[in-house]
Amino acid sequence: MIKVGIVGGTGYTGAELLRLLSQHPQAELKAITSRTEKGMPVADMFPSLRRRVSLAFSDPAEAHLDQCDVVFFATPHGVAMTQGPALLEKGVRIIDLAADFRLKDPAVFAHWYKMEHSQLGLLAESVYGLPEVNREAIRKARVIGLPGCYPTSVQLGFLPLIEPAAGDLIELDSLIADCKSGVSGAGRKAEVHTLLAEASDNFKAYGVSGHRHLPEIVQGLQAIAGRPVKLVFTPHLVPMIRGIHATLYARVKPGAQDVDFQALFEKRYAREPFVDVMPKGSTPETRSVRASNMVRIAVHRPPGSDLITILVVEDNLVKGASGQGVQVMNLMFGLPEDTGLTQVPVLP
Amino acid sequence: MIKVGIVGGTGYTGAELLRLLSQHPQAELKAITSRTEKGMPVADMFPSLRRRVSLAFSDPAEAHLDQCDVVFFATPHGVAMTQGPALLEKGVRIIDLAADFRLKDPAVFAHWYKMEHSQLGLLAESVYGLPEVNREAIRKARVIGLPGCYPTSVQLGFLPLIEPAAGDLIELDSLIADCKSGVSGAGRKAEVHTLLAEASDNFKAYGVSGHRHLPEIVQGLQAIAGRPVKLVFTPHLVPMIRGIHATLYARVKPGAQDVDFQALFEKRYAREPFVDVMPKGSTPETRSVRASNMVRIAVHRPPGSDLITILVVEDNLVKGASGQGVQVMNLMFGLPEDTGLTQVPVLP
Amino acid sequence: MIKVGIVGGTGYTGAELLRLLSQHPQAELKAITSRTEKGMPVADMFPSLRRRVSLAFSDPAEAHLDQCDVVFFATPHGVAMTQGPALLEKGVRIIDLAADFRLKDPAVFAHWYKMEHSQLGLLAESVYGLPEVNREAIRKARVIGLPGCYPTSVQLGFLPLIEPAAGDLIELDSLIADCKSGVSGAGRKAEVHTLLAEASDNFKAYGVSGHRHLPEIVQGLQAIAGRPVKLVFTPHLVPMIRGIHATLYARVKPGAQDVDFQALFEKRYAREPFVDVMPKGSTPETRSVRASNMVRIAVHRPPGSDLITILVVEDNLVKGASGQGVQVMNLMFGLPEDTGLTQVPVLP
Amino acid sequence: MIKVGIVGGTGYTGAELLRLLSQHPQAELKAITSRTEKGMPVADMFPSLRRRVSLAFSDPAEAHLDQCDVVFFATPHGVAMTQGPALLEKGVRIIDLAADFRLKDPAVFAHWYKMEHSQLGLLAESVYGLPEVNREAIRKARVIGLPGCYPTSVQLGFLPLIEPAAGDLIELDSLIADCKSGVSGAGRKAEVHTLLAEASDNFKAYGVSGHRHLPEIVQGLQAIAGRPVKLVFTPHLVPMIRGIHATLYARVKPGAQDVDFQALFEKRYAREPFVDVMPKGSTPETRSVRASNMVRIAVHRPPGSDLITILVVEDNLVKGASGQGVQVMNLMFGLPEDTGLTQVPVLP
Repeated sequence: MIKVGIVGGTGYTGAELLRLLSQHPQAELKAITSRTEKGMPVADMFPSLRRRVSLAFSDPAEAHLDQCDVVFFATPHGVAMTQGPALLEKGVRIIDLAADFRLKDPAVFAHWYKMEHSQLGLLAESVYGLPEVNREAIRKARVIGLPGCYPTSVQLGFLPLIEPAAGDLIELDSLIADCKSGVSGAGRKAEVHTLLAEASDNFKAYGVSGHRHLPEIVQGLQAIAGRPVKLVFTPHLVPMIRGIHATLYARVKPGAQDVDFQALFEKRYAREPFVDVMPKGSTPETRSVRASNMVRIAVHRPPGSDLITILVVEDNLVKGASGQGVQVMNLMFGLPEDTGLTQVPVLP
Repeated sequence: MIKVGIVGGTGYTGAELLRLLSQHPQAELKAITSRTEKGMPVADMFPSLRRRVSLAFSDPAEAHLDQCDVVFFATPHGVAMTQGPALLEKGVRIIDLAADFRLKDPAVFAHWYKMEHSQLGLLAESVYGLPEVNREAIRKARVIGLPGCYPTSVQLGFLPLIEPAAGDLIELDSLIADCKSGVSGAGRKAEVHTLLAEASDNFKAYGVSGHRHLPEIVQGLQAIAGRPVKLVFTPHLVPMIRGIHATLYARVKPGAQDVDFQALFEKRYAREPFVDVMPKGSTPETRSVRASNMVRIAVHRPPGSDLITILVVEDNLVKGASGQGVQVMNLMFGLPEDTGLTQVPVLP
Repeated sequence: MIKVGIVGGTGYTGAELLRLLSQHPQAELKAITSRTEKGMPVADMFPSLRRRVSLAFSDPAEAHLDQCDVVFFATPHGVAMTQGPALLEKGVRIIDLAADFRLKDPAVFAHWYKMEHSQLGLLAESVYGLPEVNREAIRKARVIGLPGCYPTSVQLGFLPLIEPAAGDLIELDSLIADCKSGVSGAGRKAEVHTLLAEASDNFKAYGVSGHRHLPEIVQGLQAIAGRPVKLVFTPHLVPMIRGIHATLYARVKPGAQDVDFQALFEKRYAREPFVDVMPKGSTPETRSVRASNMVRIAVHRPPGSDLITILVVEDNLVKGASGQGVQVMNLMFGLPEDTGLTQVPVLP
Repeated sequence: MIKVGIVGGTGYTGAELLRLLSQHPQAELKAITSRTEKGMPVADMFPSLRRRVSLAFSDPAEAHLDQCDVVFFATPHGVAMTQGPALLEKGVRIIDLAADFRLKDPAVFAHWYKMEHSQLGLLAESVYGLPEVNREAIRKARVIGLPGCYPTSVQLGFLPLIEPAAGDLIELDSLIADCKSGVSGAGRKAEVHTLLAEASDNFKAYGVSGHRHLPEIVQGLQAIAGRPVKLVFTPHLVPMIRGIHATLYARVKPGAQDVDFQALFEKRYAREPFVDVMPKGSTPETRSVRASNMVRIAVHRPPGSDLITILVVEDNLVKGASGQGVQVMNLMFGLPEDTGLTQVPVLP
């Protein structure tokens, strides 16, 4: 059994880790910390966990996290890099669901997250936790920076098109990611704009002039492509709880107009446990992956155009966050990658 | 492994059976029939089942249902009583999710469902599939009539109050069930009034002058109480997908005003795997049982009143239908009652 | 033109006042105050008002509210009784959308609102702004306490049954109000439990053991009936923006079982501009009054029962708050009661 | 008073015409026809219209539509071209909300709507009812083909960029319209995929390989630009009732990178009563135009890119259909363009 700790379990990614780990046959939840809620049984905050999780939130100082094999940070940005080093010294591996170990360039991190990075060595050592790209490095990693929710969907959608192995298929300066997210992506924070009375029966874009996930996506795509890419990223807020739908556009090069892109995607993801390439002509729905770790992708060539359109759906709290965290944990501890992640999506 | 067949799998209860049975360690799905969709892979209709259910819908004539151990009928009313006898002859046990075996009085059945009952012998033999009431009879039953979604929540809410063992606590002619259901309760039928553009951002009562679940609830409560009861039942439509919230009212008898009803409920349900009595003062949310087989109940005494108010939440497609069916199947085949039903509710 | 001021316009009732008053042919909006937002154009906060309301929020000290004919308080409880007296001295009439002038008994007010009432004289003088009950008193009033959203629907639903003129029809100690409200009823406050990710696809009761609207409703019903009443009030939260649905129950006296209640309601409300008694058998939907000042009521006698069930729908922000405020203003200033309130409900 | 008839009033655009026309000071509703519902009071189908519209649906043969000044066709495609000529002969002007008079090329019409056009002369004569483009022609038209909901938003968004007067600003073969629509856009038809239980808490694209609005948009953009354009159009379904959000992308020509596009849009629409160019940096919400005829537009230059991003919101049933119909009617009959269209958007 893997001994697991969670720092900061009062948000949605924390609650989702609890849902997944309480069903994980090889994980033993040892502690979950929250300074503000210490002493409160977890199931009092999340009644869905009654009879399933008997832990109470504990004070970080008394949680004995250093006796865990792995600790998840489901915390605000900046916490993992502060508290992580002491755990690492004790041999605990860490998986950060926030942004501390996502951006490799500390200047870019400082620009977008308004804080200096305090652990440049760990940052250099850390592995970006996207198994479809970094599987082998993840197995051996001590520190994981888990991808953001949007970046997971956008990178998996563009990946087969831009890998060097695919050849020179698309104009790398033509990428557009028009993304739509459910409201849980904003977290469990009291804010006016995500109230039901504000966000329901409504649709809007946001962050058009700059969103923190833009540099992360660009970094990831460039790492995959081995060349510069240019991306326009437009996130939108959908009146639903869970789910991301990424609608991706790229210009196909003149010489690649006749490539069988459907086959390209199917081949690339044939052995991936959590990436499902849908049949030609499909339009995947977010609910088809609701509460599961699966990503579904459809490939389209719009009529009379030299563009390719890729549709990607994921559950932002599972493959976009906590499920990916468990997938990464499984890799780190030598388990089958889908251990504890076989929930069938909830539809309707 | 229990060999399982499903008749009529294109509705929500059929889809939910597939979701649950595909995760059930002791069930083997042998066939699912649909005359209209024969040949279509189940996962083409419900993409959430891609990679999890490889069956296609088959023609009932070719489905070899008689080789199953148990067959679920997720069909319109009237199908199970027509097709059931041939299966029973071959030793197949049947669980009907429709109303064919719910109402013991064939005249009442004929009145509410506008058809004559064709199998009076089977009707007499059949067992009402509410484990918290009929557990022992279910174990041995050949034919199960599964309770409706509303009746499950209302009966479990009133049960501890009206059992003879509890004594004479409430006025049995004073019962009110003000119930609220998500739209999936209306099934996967193309109808105008359940379109999102009609039912969303809206709330209404329906069936106030008579709903098919009324006689079923009254029959069940009377069987429990051993005496006549009078019930007013007001169903309402909630703009959500899953979930039933029953708000129940009853007048406490003068001599019972000081009874500890919280303790009564806790004691009655202490050993039930799927009934959770919440702490005093709780207001259970439907999402706290979303996609799970759990029912949660809270007991209230409104200030300055001689009424008792009981709040009950369930997922209408799970404990209100398919999950209860699997629970019943587990009992019939001697498995631990919660086998395959340990999904943690999906929140948020 | 009536010169109108609004104190505290950053919440939903303030925004709704702006929507209605900007379409009112006899009202001239002079000032809207907000200490925290002073200087911000109203339409920057509520873009729906662009090109329609050119005012900016102003500091209360500089708003010259004393030059208005009437001032609405769309503020937290306690503000109107503090700031009202100075305005009244200058001849300004005030309409409070909060609770300062709802509860006639200062001890009850102090108990439920956790503050002492500072203006006992004004409280005694103030008129409860429910036109269907207090029309004549409203015309002459200087200070109006507008009813809460739930109390409006519950009182209008029970009114014809309990008025002395109707005779002795129902057991006055048997009243139940099972009420369901859209989330805008909780106001435009940043809180976790009303986030879309929490309140959407969900249903729950709240305030079961005591809600501030309970004493207000009881006070109003007793004033109407001239006798004590006992009421159980159970509010629920519906995943929709606007709308209240009240499901009301009362026990009909043995001697009144054959009364034509439909005719009673139709006669009582025949001349009311904003109360629509629906045909027998109707189940009114909240959307049928969305964004309008109309209330719709249906009367039911559930089969085999001595209860009467009344269904009432209103838009909580219009007839339940700001629209009722405008209706009251029209009465106070001698205008036709429906001036500026003829918007057709928005359906779908 | 303009005498108005409506053919086919049982869908959403018919209901919306009724809402708007019943508040129009210069329109008198003479008849509304429905073969299937003849004799039923309109307010029985749409209770929101109780006390506001007293008409019943009438049989087309008895409706005396030829005595109207103008007749709206809120019908399936193909009806207006069949019934229109007889009305035109009597001097009645017609406004078609379906597609009969949208596409100028009958072969294109036949391809997308699967029927031959039977009135080529009228088609040639008809005017495309987009006032911001065709105002003068609309004033004199006998036959109007009203734009579709998506085409209105997309054309108004690209218009200032592609008009010849603007100069050569963007690559006309680079246009992308990533559009999102509320479910009412699918109409009031009983279909499974728009049920609340299917479409709620969900997001998907549809029609990616070809949507009927694509040729209409391209035709309109080409008419505006006077040159060929290439457009990729991706519609998506949003779990909300009303609203369209168009996210538009185009590549800015190297020589136009420094153009002040904000000023360009503001100048172009400065005198338009129903097009609101939002301040720089805005992200318009669909609810900011809910139930109103307004369109709001925001102009963005995404960082580090040579694209321009235009955000457009409209209410698909108002400016995208019935409201635009009333606007066009006002022009045809010499009324101020905003007569009867001054409703303030409903927010929240």
